Amino acid sequence: MPPSFEIKPIGFVRRSDDTLWIEIDASFLPAMAGLEDFSHIQVLFWFDQNDHAEGRSVLKVHPCRNEQNPLTGVFATHSPLRPNLIGSSLCRIASIDANRIYIDRIDAFDATPVIDIKCFIPTSRDLTNLRLPDWA
Amino acid sequence: MPPSFEIKPIGFVRRSDDTLWIEIDASFLPAMAGLEDFSHIQVLFWFDQNDHAEGRSVLKVHPCRNEQNPLTGVFATHSPLRPNLIGSSLCRIASIDANRIYIDRIDAFDATPVIDIKCFIPTSRDLTNLRLPDWA
Repeated sequence: MPPSFEIKPIGFVRRSDDTLWIEIDASFLPAMAGLEDFSHIQVLFWFDQNDHAEGRSVLKVHPCRNEQNPLTGVFATHSPLRPNLIGSSLCRIASIDANRIYIDRIDAFDATPVIDIKCFIPTSRDLTNLRLPDWA
Repeated sequence: MPPSFEIKPIGFVRRSDDTLWIEIDASFLPAMAGLEDFSHIQVLFWFDQNDHAEGRSVLKVHPCRNEQNPLTGVFATHSPLRPNLIGSSLCRIASIDANRIYIDRIDAFDATPVIDIKCFIPTSRDLTNLRLPDWA
C-alpha cells in the first residue's frame, strides 16, 4: 500500500472571452471516443492554486465563504480547500472538436488542470428523503 | 506548474458481512463536521488494484466489460482502468459514528483507499435533453 498516489493532468480548462472548453492532451484523444453520445460529463479538476501545505491543511470552512454559514468540515462542503484538492463539476457538452470539449460552464479558472472526465449517467441510487442543511 | 500532483488516502472502504462503512483517518475527524446534516455523499476513491503502468495506459474499453458494447474511450465510461484511477460513487449515509461513515453501498472493494468525500447537493445544472448511448 503506497502512502500516496500520483495523478497527472489529462488536460486543462481553457477560457476565452466567449468560449469555454477543456483541452485534452492529444495523447489521450482515443480516451474521448464515444463522448459525443453523451449530453453531459462530470469533470474532475485540481485546485492547483491551493496546492501548498496551508491549502491542504484546512479542515473546516464557512461554506460559500459566507461567515454567516456555520463552520463546517470540508468533507461536508465543496470547498476548494481540502486535503486532496479535487474539484468536480457537471457540465453540458456544447460540442466536441478533436481534443477540445466545449462546455456550458465550470467552477474552475482558466488553466486549471483537468484530471478526469466521466460520462454522466443519471444515478440509479435512491434519492428519496434527500436531506441537506439550510446553507446548501 | 508541476507535472503531477500527490494525493493521499483520507480513509478506506471497510466491509464486514453485513456492514459497510468508510473509515476516515482520525486526523481528518474535524473535516467531517456537518456531514450529519446530509443524507448523501459523493465518495471519491482510488482504484488501487489497477495502479500500475498497464492499468493506467488503457484508453478504450468495452463498457461494463461486455464485449457486445462498442469499444469506447475510458472518459466516456466509468471504467476502473483510466489514466488517473479515480472512482466516484454516490452513497446514502446510514449513520455516522465518530470517524466511521456507514453507507448503503459503494462500487469499491474492502480496503479501497478513499481520497475525498463531498456532500451531495442536487445539481442546479440544466439536465433537460439528457442524452446517452444505449449501453448506458
